[in-house]
Amino acid sequence: MKVFSQEPLRTLLPLQFEVGFSGGLEEKPTNYVPAEVPGAVQLDWARAQGWPPHWVANNFENFGWMEDKHWHYRTTLPRVEKTNDQRVYFVSHGIDYHFQIVIDGTLVLDQEGMFSKVELDVTDYPPGTEFSIRVRPVPKFAGAHRPKAQAARSVKPSVSYGWDFHPRLVPLGMWDSTHLELRHKTSILSTNIQTQLDMQAARADLRCNVIASGQSEGTSVAWDLSDPDGNMVASLRMPLINGAACLQTTLQDPRLWWCNGQGKPELYLSAVCLLDSLGQCLDRRESRLGIRRVRLVMNEGAWLEPSAFPKSRSTPPMTIELNGRRVFAKGSNWVCPDIFPGTLKRDHYEALLGQAHAAHFNILRCWGGAAVNKESFYDLCDELGLMVWQEFPLACNTYEDDPRYLEVLNTESRSIVRRLREHACLAMWCGGNELFNWWSAMTDQHLALRLLNANCLELDPQTPYLPTSPVMGVGHGDYRFRDDEGKEVFQMFANASNTAYTEFGVPGPASVSLLESFIPKNELFPPRRGTSWETHHAFGAWFVAPESWLFTGLIEEYFGPCKNLEELVQRGQLLQSEGYKCLFEEARRQKPYASMALNWCYNEPWPTAANNSLVSWPAEAKPALQSVAEACRPTLLSAKIPKFRWEPGETFSVDLSVLHDAHVALPAQTVTVFLAIEGQPELAIGQWDAPETTANTNINGPSVCTTLPSCLEGIFRLILRSSHVGEADLTSQYRLCGPVRGRG
Amino acid sequence: MKVFSQEPLRTLLPLQFEVGFSGGLEEKPTNYVPAEVPGAVQLDWARAQGWPPHWVANNFENFGWMEDKHWHYRTTLPRVEKTNDQRVYFVSHGIDYHFQIVIDGTLVLDQEGMFSKVELDVTDYPPGTEFSIRVRPVPKFAGAHRPKAQAARSVKPSVSYGWDFHPRLVPLGMWDSTHLELRHKTSILSTNIQTQLDMQAARADLRCNVIASGQSEGTSVAWDLSDPDGNMVASLRMPLINGAACLQTTLQDPRLWWCNGQGKPELYLSAVCLLDSLGQCLDRRESRLGIRRVRLVMNEGAWLEPSAFPKSRSTPPMTIELNGRRVFAKGSNWVCPDIFPGTLKRDHYEALLGQAHAAHFNILRCWGGAAVNKESFYDLCDELGLMVWQEFPLACNTYEDDPRYLEVLNTESRSIVRRLREHACLAMWCGGNELFNWWSAMTDQHLALRLLNANCLELDPQTPYLPTSPVMGVGHGDYRFRDDEGKEVFQMFANASNTAYTEFGVPGPASVSLLESFIPKNELFPPRRGTSWETHHAFGAWFVAPESWLFTGLIEEYFGPCKNLEELVQRGQLLQSEGYKCLFEEARRQKPYASMALNWCYNEPWPTAANNSLVSWPAEAKPALQSVAEACRPTLLSAKIPKFRWEPGETFSVDLSVLHDAHVALPAQTVTVFLAIEGQPELAIGQWDAPETTANTNINGPSVCTTLPSCLEGIFRLILRSSHVGEADLTSQYRLCGPVRGRG
Repeated sequence: MKVFSQEPLRTLLPLQFEVGFSGGLEEKPTNYVPAEVPGAVQLDWARAQGWPPHWVANNFENFGWMEDKHWHYRTTLPRVEKTNDQRVYFVSHGIDYHFQIVIDGTLVLDQEGMFSKVELDVTDYPPGTEFSIRVRPVPKFAGAHRPKAQAARSVKPSVSYGWDFHPRLVPLGMWDSTHLELRHKTSILSTNIQTQLDMQAARADLRCNVIASGQSEGTSVAWDLSDPDGNMVASLRMPLINGAACLQTTLQDPRLWWCNGQGKPELYLSAVCLLDSLGQCLDRRESRLGIRRVRLVMNEGAWLEPSAFPKSRSTPPMTIELNGRRVFAKGSNWVCPDIFPGTLKRDHYEALLGQAHAAHFNILRCWGGAAVNKESFYDLCDELGLMVWQEFPLACNTYEDDPRYLEVLNTESRSIVRRLREHACLAMWCGGNELFNWWSAMTDQHLALRLLNANCLELDPQTPYLPTSPVMGVGHGDYRFRDDEGKEVFQMFANASNTAYTEFGVPGPASVSLLESFIPKNELFPPRRGTSWETHHAFGAWFVAPESWLFTGLIEEYFGPCKNLEELVQRGQLLQSEGYKCLFEEARRQKPYASMALNWCYNEPWPTAANNSLVSWPAEAKPALQSVAEACRPTLLSAKIPKFRWEPGETFSVDLSVLHDAHVALPAQTVTVFLAIEGQPELAIGQWDAPETTANTNINGPSVCTTLPSCLEGIFRLILRSSHVGEADLTSQYRLCGPVRGRG
Repeated sequence: MKVFSQEPLRTLLPLQFEVGFSGGLEEKPTNYVPAEVPGAVQLDWARAQGWPPHWVANNFENFGWMEDKHWHYRTTLPRVEKTNDQRVYFVSHGIDYHFQIVIDGTLVLDQEGMFSKVELDVTDYPPGTEFSIRVRPVPKFAGAHRPKAQAARSVKPSVSYGWDFHPRLVPLGMWDSTHLELRHKTSILSTNIQTQLDMQAARADLRCNVIASGQSEGTSVAWDLSDPDGNMVASLRMPLINGAACLQTTLQDPRLWWCNGQGKPELYLSAVCLLDSLGQCLDRRESRLGIRRVRLVMNEGAWLEPSAFPKSRSTPPMTIELNGRRVFAKGSNWVCPDIFPGTLKRDHYEALLGQAHAAHFNILRCWGGAAVNKESFYDLCDELGLMVWQEFPLACNTYEDDPRYLEVLNTESRSIVRRLREHACLAMWCGGNELFNWWSAMTDQHLALRLLNANCLELDPQTPYLPTSPVMGVGHGDYRFRDDEGKEVFQMFANASNTAYTEFGVPGPASVSLLESFIPKNELFPPRRGTSWETHHAFGAWFVAPESWLFTGLIEEYFGPCKNLEELVQRGQLLQSEGYKCLFEEARRQKPYASMALNWCYNEPWPTAANNSLVSWPAEAKPALQSVAEACRPTLLSAKIPKFRWEPGETFSVDLSVLHDAHVALPAQTVTVFLAIEGQPELAIGQWDAPETTANTNINGPSVCTTLPSCLEGIFRLILRSSHVGEADLTSQYRLCGPVRGRG
């Protein structure tokens, strides 16, 4: 990232905190231990006690008592070298969750909410002043009918109260960057840059609102804008009037921000400088700008419905239009990458997001059960062309019209919108997860969701807003390779007709090496209930499916008994890989009526033994990620397969398609279909002369049919090869299951 | 209505206006004619020219040219006798649509929007000052692809641009009360009374916010509250601080406002007085208050859906809960009672609403195609226990994210919400009509609807908000006794499962005497296209059904050729009566999953020759209103009938129910079923011992079956009689059609 100047105008000074706990807000801890900030009080305490990692075996259970303690951070304000024109601020980007700040024995702040930044002018306190933060216990709604409902009256991510992939472990403490900041008394309080791209994507109007503190006479604002190559394209200057300035410029034929697979995610650089009467820079704020327009437009064909009387409404629009181009959204549900968001750093995000980009994803749904991410997450999404569907922290609970809750939600949601609205990656806001289903029991009438809609409208009107997912027409689930009625992934979407598939899951086990890292040796094989396998979600994780998420019974039904852990893992991962491939391709086959495929889920907060995730904690891809990457290639050959298990002599039939999301025409090609049975030569079973197709348009081909040979045994492969000669390899392969010796 | 004091503290002085037209805003008219205010410029001009009524024959066509003129009202300010402490205001409650006010040659106001009250202090102008209002031509969106789309960038009711029951005739001018007002310089600017009833309906918290102008020292506010019998229940007094006061009180076991059929619509009386330091009243505002709580709650059974994966959301809640009690909403769609809202007076509303009340209606949907009603409409609904579903003026158009439009919509919607929010009758807000269907092409993402949601949330958070009708699960249509595929009203809802039926229509002709009043004698019979029958909507009114709304072909198919107008009208009205009876009863039979039945439509803006309306213009009930009243009785016997036309020897079978909305238990009873064929004794065909039922609960009974006798001919009746002895007669009758001589 190029910047206009490296010279720091604000100096960040670290603060060293200690932390301890007590039984009450006013009661002092008897013991303090060193605190790592950002982090979590639980991790500080465990570190000081020399505890083994919380993510190994059932160690997390030792942390339970910490929820109900009051945690006290303390430090003393250091001597800060500064000029008379400078001020010193305490700045924290996030303190989890309800806390007080006490300076020199005086309460200066009582805040509920972890997403609103804290800024306190501490210039006038003498060095050595005691500075403390008292964090209240984990908020728990007294009327909760189940553990996660304890989060139902707070803007605290509900996932940490326990989920099918998350143990009960609720973080507390300073979770985002926190420091003293030395800045000029005349400094930038806020900047807000709005970009508006016209319908032809030929002209962008940019407006920058600046608000400054401590204005002195003759202060002005300079705004420099450089293009993605570093060439200055605009340089404006305006006097500050009543502490504010509004600068405006227009870019002709701007370089556009595109999502992954559609073009480059071009980023302009903006630098706002506060200048004194002599032109000297007092403060500066730099940021990157993507010029793009995102809308949710009607899915093709959706206006034709409903057709008969009595007539309801048409489904809500779920097709992303980016810079005037309809984009099929391919991606995943992003959950918390760690139980403790305080531990998250750019490199962790980078490892996860780099793999999402490589999988041809263009969108991530930042699920409302988890915390809103740190800035570096959105910076990376900006850079990688990953669109972000951002939810507010509401999930699977009834958030009632409680005045205190609504007040905190109002403040927190405004902070979240103000922080994220300028990121090019931000494609839509969403109220939260699965709120309009019985297990959440919220409706369009709940004030929380009307408030979020109103706040997004006021602060970021150009970004689409969804009240929740799923909305009408959108599908969530299933989350299994096969359901209790015997329906496999191959039928799961085949008879559905949704505008968007925004959650669907196929579970798979973690790698053997990861399993060995957190499951005690004596518990490793065979996996049993009542061991670390169960606390790490291999059994009884989802109440609907007692075998979730390992499904050993299903694995053995398809493949016979597993000899060892390696075999179990390999087979479970094969089901996950083929299941996900099938679902992503089927959702894409339904384009343009369908416009989104987002699997549940991408990552995970700790090492699960088995889970729907594509990437194990912290950032280790499961084999399924590679299958998904193949299914998400801009262009590929695809087969619609009726089922997983086949017998010799059975009639085998698949339907062929070319799935084509790329924004170029695709020439005609010949597709040849093969069966590959182990130990046998490949068998050509059909051919299709696929015509050329225009940009962003699939082609459906014929069915190919054959009688399966008597030599069919074990895993066999279906292979689709293309005569297409280009950069992209359009070949697709599917693994299916023939008779297996020893199968039950 | 009792009031505390009749002594007027504000004096209203009439103003006499003249009006004329010109080609431009700055161009003066050559001619002025006397203006009736409130009214419409069109009516003033026609009156001055001695034109025959616009509603007779095709006379309305003469008004077309007036749309594009600039209309100029003028008057001179009179001498007003007043004390030094008094001020004189020009007050208009509504000027339609985009206008300027010029006083003494100076432009003092330029306003777009007919729903925001105008108040101008004119105290300091000398008597004789010229006062003029320049009304711009009818707003027309230049990009309109059809006539009604000309309203797509303004907050002007779209109905007047032409509809299937409304000719093209777009009113302009002062449409609501307008006068000079003499008041004390210290006067009430606004009061806002909020009532909050607790969940047990045992306690109501009331808050009154008062804002006053021209405060002098020692001014205070007194708030007196008396119960529906006139007994004072609270008397508060607070000093005015910075021109504002907030008074608060609590009522224990308040007398509740109930809708029609559920209890009395009890109304408290509030009087807010501004008192000077000596306790003398300077200004007073009186209003009535209904203590009630309205919510939209989930329809019973709706949380169980959807059941299968991929799973979408549950349907939005459409059951009205009033004071904790679920109420089946029975009513109709209220359209404009006149082409010119300026002509509407309390007595016209009273005639219409009294009949709605007598028909056992408890709700009216004030449809978004029409103008928001005058105050007396809501006063009457308060008194009669008629809940109001109030839409904003958006209907069947795409209201795009245009900044100017959104600004006007913002102002106008805030004025509408502020004016109506204190009415007890106001049960819900709604964005407008059929906006989420292809013919409107709006979606949840349109800023207009997000803005309306946000404004309602801010100004009236306790009242439910719907973005439009229909929403998911809600049904609109059909609008015919029989559709093109031969499906009759009897099948229309029988296979549907909607949460609410908020529009459904069956057309019927006007009475012979009304038809004779507006169709020239030589056109009267037989009805023909190209005559006043067609301009009054008897033919080609609805593009889907060329025979709409008279359906002569269908009438003759059932009954044979019509000899004269009387026979045609009688038969058409019979179909309407029986069609509506069937639909209301079927919707009620689907309770509790279904919770609303509102037919399209109640009234009409001018005399239609045929229409779905129950009441002809101005307030003449069609026979169908009586049938609907029978179908909406709190308790009645009901038969589910499979079809209209029957043959001798055919097996006749109906399903029996008791429909019971009353809030009392109903004892067991014996139901006997008869067939009545003209000229034959009544034939008992079945009996049912119906068990007792609890409050607000239907009972479904058995089927009753018989072979139709050979004497079946002409109209015959099915009669259900009950052994129930009570105030209410539960008997129901249905007319059906046997062989008719001369039928085609």
